[in-house]
Amino acid sequence: MTQTNEPNKETCTGNCSSCPSATKCDDPRNADAPKGLPPKADVSVKHVVLVLSGKGGVGKSTVSANLAYALANRGFNTGLIDLDIHGPDIPKMLGIEEARLQSYDGKIIEPVKITGNLAVISMAFLLPERNTPVIWRGPMKMTVIRQFLEDVNWGDLDYLIVDLPPGTGDEALTVAQLAPNIAGAVIVTTPQEVAILDSSKAVEFIKKLELRVLGIVENMSGFVCPHCKEEIDIFGKGGGKKEAEALGVPFLGAIPLDPEMRKAADEGRPFIIRKTGAEENPTWKSIDTIMQTLVEQIEE
Amino acid sequence: MTQTNEPNKETCTGNCSSCPSATKCDDPRNADAPKGLPPKADVSVKHVVLVLSGKGGVGKSTVSANLAYALANRGFNTGLIDLDIHGPDIPKMLGIEEARLQSYDGKIIEPVKITGNLAVISMAFLLPERNTPVIWRGPMKMTVIRQFLEDVNWGDLDYLIVDLPPGTGDEALTVAQLAPNIAGAVIVTTPQEVAILDSSKAVEFIKKLELRVLGIVENMSGFVCPHCKEEIDIFGKGGGKKEAEALGVPFLGAIPLDPEMRKAADEGRPFIIRKTGAEENPTWKSIDTIMQTLVEQIEE
Repeated sequence: MTQTNEPNKETCTGNCSSCPSATKCDDPRNADAPKGLPPKADVSVKHVVLVLSGKGGVGKSTVSANLAYALANRGFNTGLIDLDIHGPDIPKMLGIEEARLQSYDGKIIEPVKITGNLAVISMAFLLPERNTPVIWRGPMKMTVIRQFLEDVNWGDLDYLIVDLPPGTGDEALTVAQLAPNIAGAVIVTTPQEVAILDSSKAVEFIKKLELRVLGIVENMSGFVCPHCKEEIDIFGKGGGKKEAEALGVPFLGAIPLDPEMRKAADEGRPFIIRKTGAEENPTWKSIDTIMQTLVEQIEE
Repeated sequence: MTQTNEPNKETCTGNCSSCPSATKCDDPRNADAPKGLPPKADVSVKHVVLVLSGKGGVGKSTVSANLAYALANRGFNTGLIDLDIHGPDIPKMLGIEEARLQSYDGKIIEPVKITGNLAVISMAFLLPERNTPVIWRGPMKMTVIRQFLEDVNWGDLDYLIVDLPPGTGDEALTVAQLAPNIAGAVIVTTPQEVAILDSSKAVEFIKKLELRVLGIVENMSGFVCPHCKEEIDIFGKGGGKKEAEALGVPFLGAIPLDPEMRKAADEGRPFIIRKTGAEENPTWKSIDTIMQTLVEQIEE
């Protein structure tokens, strides 16, 4: 839909590799060229991990941010792209809302460095005000996604985590087409039925693109009253696990609904870097286990 | 971005009404033509109400479904369009997942009738399987949005409620351009800071389009343990109200986080039609009050 160069027999030089119509041409000399897809973005990365969901508000950004931190903590060079162009929440969650992108030569953008081996790119770094809406249609979004991949000084990355907006539209499709070395996708859901319904669509989407589903994370799973310690059924529990089994994809684990995690995000610190007594905290343990499982799966 | 016909003085016939460049031309003869916008969809409706949010998962569909029911209960002819093309949850919430769209003449689509004066259209009614993902870019979505407005046998509507996907992209922009008689927009948010940040973008978006912000609804506001009755700070409380005051837009009210409401949605019944003892239930009362305020505001 973004390519308008129809193949033209009269102007054909037989040199498919430099021809703008190569992706749409069925000439036998062009048999090996990929059809109908734009070329991959030029970025040096070993594994690209997509984080997506069917429904919004299930914790994609939380999972993405914590996954990026977990990987960087394990010594990997890690990049994190916030592709929620209309609602970029990653900078707020990481406490780097005020950061702005820089460029030394006017061409290559410097990402915002959080630590020596963790860098972040987000639309939020380009907005004049924190509440400026980005009113863009699909084609504009495709352009910025390619720039976030190609025109950023990422260096040599081990991992690039891509936090997507909800759904299976322009952003998800574009990054799936442009990003090289996609290890697979992590699907985040909450346990209630409407979220499960949408997450099964996300799984089908990834399968249709012939990418690997690394697994389903069930977020906001179960809740225990901090006062009386009784279990409360807010969003339910177990829906993500059941769905993973039904769809035949790995279940990565469940993260309980925890007000402390919401507070951490609002205060701009990823929950995973919580220090004192963290090992005793069930929420922290669940996240740490999920991230460990995920890393093992990708590295295996 | 969707119009490529640049005005051309040499081929100008002076007949603006049939000229494809009329919306972009500043010739004085064309002074009365609307600029840069596609023509409005042909649908007979007194008030179109957009329901949107910056962030996903804040309860837009819940608010939309309950608002549509509240209006129909008050005797208004009401239509409800589920514009979340990738994650259409309205049919699941209303227990009409299995319904399919029909057409008697192959041109005009019959919406799914819930009651004599409440009809619904959703992408979900067109999908072969419940978990089929809709992998569409923006231009395809524009086409279906125009069809949902124009090619549906809505009859004469008093109200058309439009449930949008999160963000300020193709769907929101398209419906804002195509729908006639837009009364304004209801912005749904949850109280935590990341949601508030995104909802302020939605407010700015509506203002930029020169539409009216009917008000902000704060969903999942506060939580009381059903066992020990102690207050628990899950997503916080009061953030939406504070933001409404800061942005100078009406605050419509707060709906508490209530597991009963999530269950109602999963079981396919709008919470507002809950019968026995409903008047005693604080969640029901809060929704009823918000809907009453909203109707008064639009009808005034």
